[in-house]
Amino acid sequence: MKSAEPTPQRGPTVGRGSRMRAAVLAATITELTETGYAALTVDAVAQRAGVHKTTIYRNWKTSDGLVADALAHHFATDIPIPDTGAVKDDLRALARALVATMTTSAGRALLTTALSDTARTPQLAEIKRALFEDRFRRAEPVVDRAVERGELPTDTDPGELLKALVAPIYFRLVFTGEPVDETTADRAVDVALAAAHAHALPTP
Amino acid sequence: MKSAEPTPQRGPTVGRGSRMRAAVLAATITELTETGYAALTVDAVAQRAGVHKTTIYRNWKTSDGLVADALAHHFATDIPIPDTGAVKDDLRALARALVATMTTSAGRALLTTALSDTARTPQLAEIKRALFEDRFRRAEPVVDRAVERGELPTDTDPGELLKALVAPIYFRLVFTGEPVDETTADRAVDVALAAAHAHALPTP
Repeated sequence: MKSAEPTPQRGPTVGRGSRMRAAVLAATITELTETGYAALTVDAVAQRAGVHKTTIYRNWKTSDGLVADALAHHFATDIPIPDTGAVKDDLRALARALVATMTTSAGRALLTTALSDTARTPQLAEIKRALFEDRFRRAEPVVDRAVERGELPTDTDPGELLKALVAPIYFRLVFTGEPVDETTADRAVDVALAAAHAHALPTP
Repeated sequence: MKSAEPTPQRGPTVGRGSRMRAAVLAATITELTETGYAALTVDAVAQRAGVHKTTIYRNWKTSDGLVADALAHHFATDIPIPDTGAVKDDLRALARALVATMTTSAGRALLTTALSDTARTPQLAEIKRALFEDRFRRAEPVVDRAVERGELPTDTDPGELLKALVAPIYFRLVFTGEPVDETTADRAVDVALAAAHAHALPTP
C-alpha cells in the first residue's frame, strides 16, 4: 500500500499518519496483552497511543476493526522466512520462530484474542482465516525450494506440510497446557518431514 | 461415583438426582449451543431443564462449575475407543469419531466454550486440560495394543501419537475454517502413522 492517503481499511501508512498508525497498533497490542480483548476500549488505546479517540474512529471505524488490523500487522511481521538451503534447517527456523513469538505474553494474549467468541465477531473470524492464509502463503517457498532441490517428494503439498508443522504447536498452546519450547518445535519438524516422505501430505 | 448423596463437585449421579443431573447437563449443552457461553444464565438452564434454579446452585455452586461439568460429561462419552485388531482401522475410527462429534453444532459450540477467555475463567482452563488428558488416557490402549502386535515401533509414545493424530483436526476446526471431514480424519491418520514409523514420536 503506497498511497499517501489514509485508507479506511488499514489506517494511514506513510509519514505522520504512518507514525500515528504504528503508535495506535502498538498501543492496541499492549492493551490486548494487559487487559484482554473483552475489556479493550478505544479510549484506553487512544490514551496509551497519545492520540484523540476520534482519530482512531476516523481511521478504523470500530474497535473490532482496530483489533483486526493490530493482529494482522503483528502476525504479518513476526516470523521471518528462512532460506538456508536445507529443508530441515528451514523448517526448524520456522517452527522455532513460531514458538518464540507465540509464547511471549503478547503472543499468548493475541492467541486468546483470535480465539474469542468469533461467532459473535465475524470480522475477527474472517481476519483469523486471512492471517493464517497469509502466513502459509509467505512460507510456501520454503517447501517449493525443498521439492526443487529434491529433498521432498514432488507430490508434497506446501500448505499441507506447513499445517502439519504448526498444528502440534498450536494444539499444545491452545488445549493441553504443556510446555511449548524448541523441543516441541523440532519434534513438529520431524513429524512433518516423516509425513512428507511417506507421501501423506499430497497435493489434491 | 456410586454414592446416593449429591456430590458438590459433580452433582448427584443416581436415582431421581441422576435424572435431574442428566436433564440439567443436557439443558446446559443446549443453552451453550443456542446462546453461547457468554450469554448463558442459570435461570435459562433451570427453565429448560424444568428444575428450580436453587437446585442448580445447590449442586453446582456457580454457572462456571455447571458449564465445566457439562463439558466434562459430554466429552467423556462422545468418542468410543475402538479395538479392531489393526492400528490403522482403530486410528481411523478414533479420528472419524472426533470429526463427527466436533462438527455438530453442539460440538462447535462446546469448542467455542472451551476456547473462551480462559485467563478470566481458570476453572474452564483447568477442566479443558483435564478433559484432554482424560481423552488421551482413554485412547492410549489403542496405541499400546498396536505396539504389542508389532504394528508400531516400540519407542512410540501413545500420548504423542494421539496428539499428532488430533492436532491437524483441531487446527482446522479452530484456525483455518477449512472443511473438516473424513478425508481430514484419514489424512491425519496417515501423518501420525508415518511419524510413528519414522520414530518421530518417541517416549521421553
